[in-house]
Amino acid sequence: MRRFGKITIIGVGLIGGSIGLAIKKRKLAAKVIGVFRRKTTLKKALTCRAVDIGTLDLKEGVRDADLVIVATPVSSIPRLIIEAARHVKKGAVITDAGSTKSWIVSEVEKRLGGSEKARFVGSHPMAGSEQTGVESAGGDLFDGSPCIVTKTAKTDRSSLEKVVSLWKALGARVTVMDPPTHDRTVSLISHLPHIVAFSLAGAVPAKELPYAAEGFRDTTRVASSDAKLWADIFLTNRKEAVNAGRAFEGYYGKLIAAIAGGKRKEVLKLLEEARLKRGKIIYGRDT
Amino acid sequence: MRRFGKITIIGVGLIGGSIGLAIKKRKLAAKVIGVFRRKTTLKKALTCRAVDIGTLDLKEGVRDADLVIVATPVSSIPRLIIEAARHVKKGAVITDAGSTKSWIVSEVEKRLGGSEKARFVGSHPMAGSEQTGVESAGGDLFDGSPCIVTKTAKTDRSSLEKVVSLWKALGARVTVMDPPTHDRTVSLISHLPHIVAFSLAGAVPAKELPYAAEGFRDTTRVASSDAKLWADIFLTNRKEAVNAGRAFEGYYGKLIAAIAGGKRKEVLKLLEEARLKRGKIIYGRDT
Repeated sequence: MRRFGKITIIGVGLIGGSIGLAIKKRKLAAKVIGVFRRKTTLKKALTCRAVDIGTLDLKEGVRDADLVIVATPVSSIPRLIIEAARHVKKGAVITDAGSTKSWIVSEVEKRLGGSEKARFVGSHPMAGSEQTGVESAGGDLFDGSPCIVTKTAKTDRSSLEKVVSLWKALGARVTVMDPPTHDRTVSLISHLPHIVAFSLAGAVPAKELPYAAEGFRDTTRVASSDAKLWADIFLTNRKEAVNAGRAFEGYYGKLIAAIAGGKRKEVLKLLEEARLKRGKIIYGRDT
Repeated sequence: MRRFGKITIIGVGLIGGSIGLAIKKRKLAAKVIGVFRRKTTLKKALTCRAVDIGTLDLKEGVRDADLVIVATPVSSIPRLIIEAARHVKKGAVITDAGSTKSWIVSEVEKRLGGSEKARFVGSHPMAGSEQTGVESAGGDLFDGSPCIVTKTAKTDRSSLEKVVSLWKALGARVTVMDPPTHDRTVSLISHLPHIVAFSLAGAVPAKELPYAAEGFRDTTRVASSDAKLWADIFLTNRKEAVNAGRAFEGYYGKLIAAIAGGKRKEVLKLLEEARLKRGKIIYGRDT
């Protein structure tokens, strides 16, 4: 169903490419245009059929778009949104796919005019993997995954609705919240697991790695993620990332102290509480 | 190839059941006997064909065995090894599948006579999952997985060789080391990931769980493991578990401090170091 006219994706990697594939698979747009920084990536995206048309020229790429999605690394997102806003036609909606929101949204709202900022709506599709690049993209990436869409006092209602309907059409479970609430939530449910996984992989001496089994492998999987992408994410959500760390340290500290003290009852209580909570995850219930 | 005559497995859950299935699949023994505590488990194991014969009577179960494998929760292993040693025929070899070794081996060596203790060889097949029970067992569980076999000054060489050849025949990559070295290695590569995963699942408020995506799910997968089993493991390897925790805290503390201080170069360095190390895992290279 063609709910959207032309959709332009700026940055066609794992996330941008999966958005393109998902839109095309579901025939949600008349045309999907990709804006690239490098010719090699443009060629790859066309080979993968993630977009219909590719260009290296942002101005040209967004000119006729009804909806623009910025899916580049976090640190470049505000700049690209502002640049896109300068060149889109009247009424076009702009969204992004960045993992932090307060910083992006405030940067954008600081620098765009009233009607322009109203037509920007922040998004965070919580899907992906430790893989990168359009060659790892898939049209089902957002199926059943959570997606947070942000709303501020300045957000235009019909633009918000368009963005929400896009993610729903891509199969995501959408929740609308304000940027600070988003940043707190994802610091706990997404940034913290990454911090912990990177720390675990970093802490274990290399000579022990031959003995790694499934447990170590799964617990550290996201530590194979792109370091620059995640440095960006942590650093644009510093306060909440550190706060989430405090919550982790509290539980971890109690567990280590109970083990050190040989307190079986306390150890059991902490493990069982964690186990029950872990059983409540909705997404991918089977594993 | 029938390298072993009769093999008796005491405790036929996920690990014991997988050992039985793997032995039968590879035709390594003339007969596989299971010793059970409960009739319901016995019936399940026979339905799954994890053993040829089941009994609730340990004495009867081990009497004719050439090799006995104790695959119960850690805290019960020394007692069952000692009981089995009392009833096996002369020359029979006994091993176990417990996740800690110093405590088990020292308990056993303290209480058995010279030739008996020589014929006990500690094992730790590093395979499994957060699942439990014979119904989750599989004959390929040990394929390509690490397995540590322990050796002390008292270990009989031919018994050690028999145990090593069993795990190799089941597809495992076997390393022989002394119990303290084993306990240090697994504290880092296995116990620590569990401590961290349980702490992460425990720390995140339940109201954030609907937003959990793949990252949270994988990083906490092992927190769905049986709490009693893991309380036993941590508490029988307390000193090393706490030491492994210190290593984690060191890396984690540096990462959090670098994020808090907005030190991009330091954050990047820590993430990249962790990422490269994680890429060196041998087992299950593909994910």
